Amino acid sequence: MSRPRLDLGLYLVTDRPALLGRDLLDVVGQAVAGGAGLVQLREKTASTREFVELARAVAGILRPRGVPLLINDRVDVALAAGADGVHVGQDDMRPADVRAILGPDALIGLSVTGEAEARAARGEPVDYLGAGPVFATATKPDAGAAQGLAGLAAMIALAEVPVVAIGAITSANAASVLDQGAAGLAVVSAICSAPNPREAAARLRRIVDGVRPG
Amino acid sequence: MSRPRLDLGLYLVTDRPALLGRDLLDVVGQAVAGGAGLVQLREKTASTREFVELARAVAGILRPRGVPLLINDRVDVALAAGADGVHVGQDDMRPADVRAILGPDALIGLSVTGEAEARAARGEPVDYLGAGPVFATATKPDAGAAQGLAGLAAMIALAEVPVVAIGAITSANAASVLDQGAAGLAVVSAICSAPNPREAAARLRRIVDGVRPG
Repeated sequence: MSRPRLDLGLYLVTDRPALLGRDLLDVVGQAVAGGAGLVQLREKTASTREFVELARAVAGILRPRGVPLLINDRVDVALAAGADGVHVGQDDMRPADVRAILGPDALIGLSVTGEAEARAARGEPVDYLGAGPVFATATKPDAGAAQGLAGLAAMIALAEVPVVAIGAITSANAASVLDQGAAGLAVVSAICSAPNPREAAARLRRIVDGVRPG
Repeated sequence: MSRPRLDLGLYLVTDRPALLGRDLLDVVGQAVAGGAGLVQLREKTASTREFVELARAVAGILRPRGVPLLINDRVDVALAAGADGVHVGQDDMRPADVRAILGPDALIGLSVTGEAEARAARGEPVDYLGAGPVFATATKPDAGAAQGLAGLAAMIALAEVPVVAIGAITSANAASVLDQGAAGLAVVSAICSAPNPREAAARLRRIVDGVRPG
């Protein structure tokens, strides 16, 4: 792995049920065409073999477009597929262990919910935090209680690395999320379940590009 | 990893439900004291973080005794815990991918059920095959149909690497299993669920040592 450019502005996190039966690769391609700069492949039910094969297929779409691929939880799948890194939750491998295995150039993200987890993340060898859920979400039943905009701002204030907000973010609330200082928006349903994923991604991207300083 | 001695004679595969509530580390220690020469840690419900922590604890028991530890399915857990290798099934990572990640010194085993899978395993970069289930087993509901002693013999005849038999093996049927040419016995319940795991392991070990040539 060589360290890829990290564009956190619009970050697609995949979820198979949220696709409403559509093809994952097609939706990923549309999301990137619409402006997603980072993709996390999340699979909670696939076998390891299926997960590796899917990750390779997604990597094949993203690599020519220069968009990094992160794998949820599974360092082994990231290694086998040649992904750019891993996103871990609080029950997944510890960031220090991930870093020790994947090396300094891998991208590593960590989910935090609440100020205690944001504080505990200080000093962890991660490239960004995924903070949420900002709003209540049905996509990830185990995501914990909604933190709200104030909760997001508190987590961002504690963070030493860029923070991506996640949790029921839509084009309607995206500006208010970015106003809290988030480096970007991580979305699942807003793209995966959109009638037109490419247009949905482009709409979010315009909000990100318009609000972010610089 | 440096390539450890591979003693396939008596191979403990862990299964948390089969422990009947007893402590996994205690049962592993007893199994090794009784003569198990190889341990596979299998966890199908633990989080990645729990799995890594458990694997490190088991490795801490086995390392001073010179008994290699294999991790079921999860190459990432094996790397994080410093295990000696991985055992994969037909739905897990392909042996060639495992070998590419873990290198030439890792121990890699592959489960096969039936002649077609045994034939397909020829040429795979594995150190042994786990062939079964020899007899019907309740431990692993997805293990497939019992192959019987004749089925085991057929798989062994096709194999290019040593074959460990698995599937409801007990001290009552162990000799008949070894008579088919198996390099060893992989057991779950026969040790994990035994009233005295150490004695159960020692009984099986005596059968292995008595029957095996040399």
